[in-house]
Amino acid sequence: MSESVLLSEIAEQPAIIEGLLKAAAPAVERIAADIRGRRLHHVVIAARGSSDNAARYAQYLFGSHNRLSVTLAAPSLFTRYRTPPAMAGALVVGISQSGESPDLISVVEEGKRQGCLTLAVTNVAGSPLAAMADHTIVLGAGQERSIAATKTYTAQLTALAMLSTALAENARWSRELAAMPEHVAAALYVERESVVAAAAALKDAGHGVVLGRGFNFSTAFEAALKAKELAYVAVEPYSSADFQHGPIALVEPGFAAMVFNVTGAVSSEVEGLLREIRERGARPVVFSNEPSSLELAAAPVALPAGMPEWVSPIAAIVPAQLLAFHLSRMRGYDPDRPRGLKKVTKTT
Amino acid sequence: MSESVLLSEIAEQPAIIEGLLKAAAPAVERIAADIRGRRLHHVVIAARGSSDNAARYAQYLFGSHNRLSVTLAAPSLFTRYRTPPAMAGALVVGISQSGESPDLISVVEEGKRQGCLTLAVTNVAGSPLAAMADHTIVLGAGQERSIAATKTYTAQLTALAMLSTALAENARWSRELAAMPEHVAAALYVERESVVAAAAALKDAGHGVVLGRGFNFSTAFEAALKAKELAYVAVEPYSSADFQHGPIALVEPGFAAMVFNVTGAVSSEVEGLLREIRERGARPVVFSNEPSSLELAAAPVALPAGMPEWVSPIAAIVPAQLLAFHLSRMRGYDPDRPRGLKKVTKTT
Repeated sequence: MSESVLLSEIAEQPAIIEGLLKAAAPAVERIAADIRGRRLHHVVIAARGSSDNAARYAQYLFGSHNRLSVTLAAPSLFTRYRTPPAMAGALVVGISQSGESPDLISVVEEGKRQGCLTLAVTNVAGSPLAAMADHTIVLGAGQERSIAATKTYTAQLTALAMLSTALAENARWSRELAAMPEHVAAALYVERESVVAAAAALKDAGHGVVLGRGFNFSTAFEAALKAKELAYVAVEPYSSADFQHGPIALVEPGFAAMVFNVTGAVSSEVEGLLREIRERGARPVVFSNEPSSLELAAAPVALPAGMPEWVSPIAAIVPAQLLAFHLSRMRGYDPDRPRGLKKVTKTT
Repeated sequence: MSESVLLSEIAEQPAIIEGLLKAAAPAVERIAADIRGRRLHHVVIAARGSSDNAARYAQYLFGSHNRLSVTLAAPSLFTRYRTPPAMAGALVVGISQSGESPDLISVVEEGKRQGCLTLAVTNVAGSPLAAMADHTIVLGAGQERSIAATKTYTAQLTALAMLSTALAENARWSRELAAMPEHVAAALYVERESVVAAAAALKDAGHGVVLGRGFNFSTAFEAALKAKELAYVAVEPYSSADFQHGPIALVEPGFAAMVFNVTGAVSSEVEGLLREIRERGARPVVFSNEPSSLELAAAPVALPAGMPEWVSPIAAIVPAQLLAFHLSRMRGYDPDRPRGLKKVTKTT
């Protein structure tokens, strides 16, 4: 396989996550103490693109482990309508690889103006977003040269999981998170043939869907974004519940689908939906650590066993990053040079 | 044109909205007084499908006009993980045509358990959702026989706009809302040829996107859902800002797009994106009341002039409902009998 910046960045992920778990721990403890001291009950997150998918993970993570409601901010309320909602009592978080998008900075700036505690999660310590916020978690993922985010996405998930765990002061969750570099490495060295076969199954699909629920709703979104950015395959993400409220009508024989199913609270439901779309003729690529789900796949990709559902999004996305890489090349594109995209997109 | 239940329900909308504005006013005033008395600062909404698109409208509406943060609930936190987030200080709202989906009822039930004020927005006064909530706004749209929601969707938007306006005690907004039956009628009697031509432009598209921002982000979502449910065209909704963070890479010559652009705070930005996707070769269907945006269309559909942006989603969706109807028939389907869908989808 010829050299690729994207592929080498995908491969860096276990080491980056391991480094982040150590390097960011003191900052995370300080932030958690500050949040606890203020008795915050609510989190507002502003993010775009892959970072917004990390925010979707945060909605389940903080909701489930910290009982915090998470609002995904509508930045145009701040920038275009100039009528920002009241955020008193909320932690206001901006997540951005570059820390440069003006709309996200506006949300954090307004949070400060309203007296909220603010946090930046970014790869660039000296970025305007970091300069604006009270606290920063620096991802330390090294420069991301690829236009498609990979290592900064899993680092964002890790940073959020660290903060949630520090807030909860939960030793078990801390140990489970500490084991993730190994699970990510296992996901990276998944049987290469299975990923190539899965890419081949999607190669000629004009469009399709990516299904996941709960913690891995974020994984469905991020996997879909990678396939769109790198391979120009119009796959769209759905929670398995929302999919049943209308879009399931799209499924017909040969319909392309990717399904993520990690053992846990939603796995029996996701497997039920998988059965249903199979019966309607879909040919799903299934990423799972459940043997019964893998058996339903037109192309199975095994995920590492033994990882708890709540941290599984950090590893489950990795084979989907590899799939998007192979899919891009199979369709005659250069994954290191996606057409029509810039690394830093500044929206207002 | 032969008879269609869907078409007749689409045509009922001006009368239903006019009736709702009168019939629900006393209940809405009572609910607004109750909310003001409790000094609530935050709204949590649980909804699926078209009702979730009404919730997206509520995020901009309550954020912009009432300075309330709106969280779209993740129902699986309540039903599957059994770790509901704390919602103290929030108004908890369930929006559902039937009022029957167990996951939405669970969110409202948990809100009550936590001592929150709860509200049901539903078409069925005696439904389990209405029975659970402290307050109900009954849509009064009459039985919706079509599987695809049309009249209950615009009634939901109207109910939410009534509540926001009553909360703000704003006379101008009240007058603007009272004028909507006329604008919806105007949108209904849009030049039929333009809608048919727009449907023809999308007839052979395998997939595409629907773009809108701000208040009409909801319209983009709902228009996409109608095209999927009724005509099995895989068009996917994006805010014009999110679209630039990755998915714009999909655009190539002949790419199918629908763009909603109503005069207001985001219209210059949406028109800028429209220009950009034209330059990349897209052939957009444009729903707009801005002449300069309509000029950029491969197929223009004129929206009523003179309606304020904040209420425009109630009318802007109507030509898109008609488009989905024509698109369904053109593609050889029966819009009154979408394949594989039930009227009431009960997810948990």
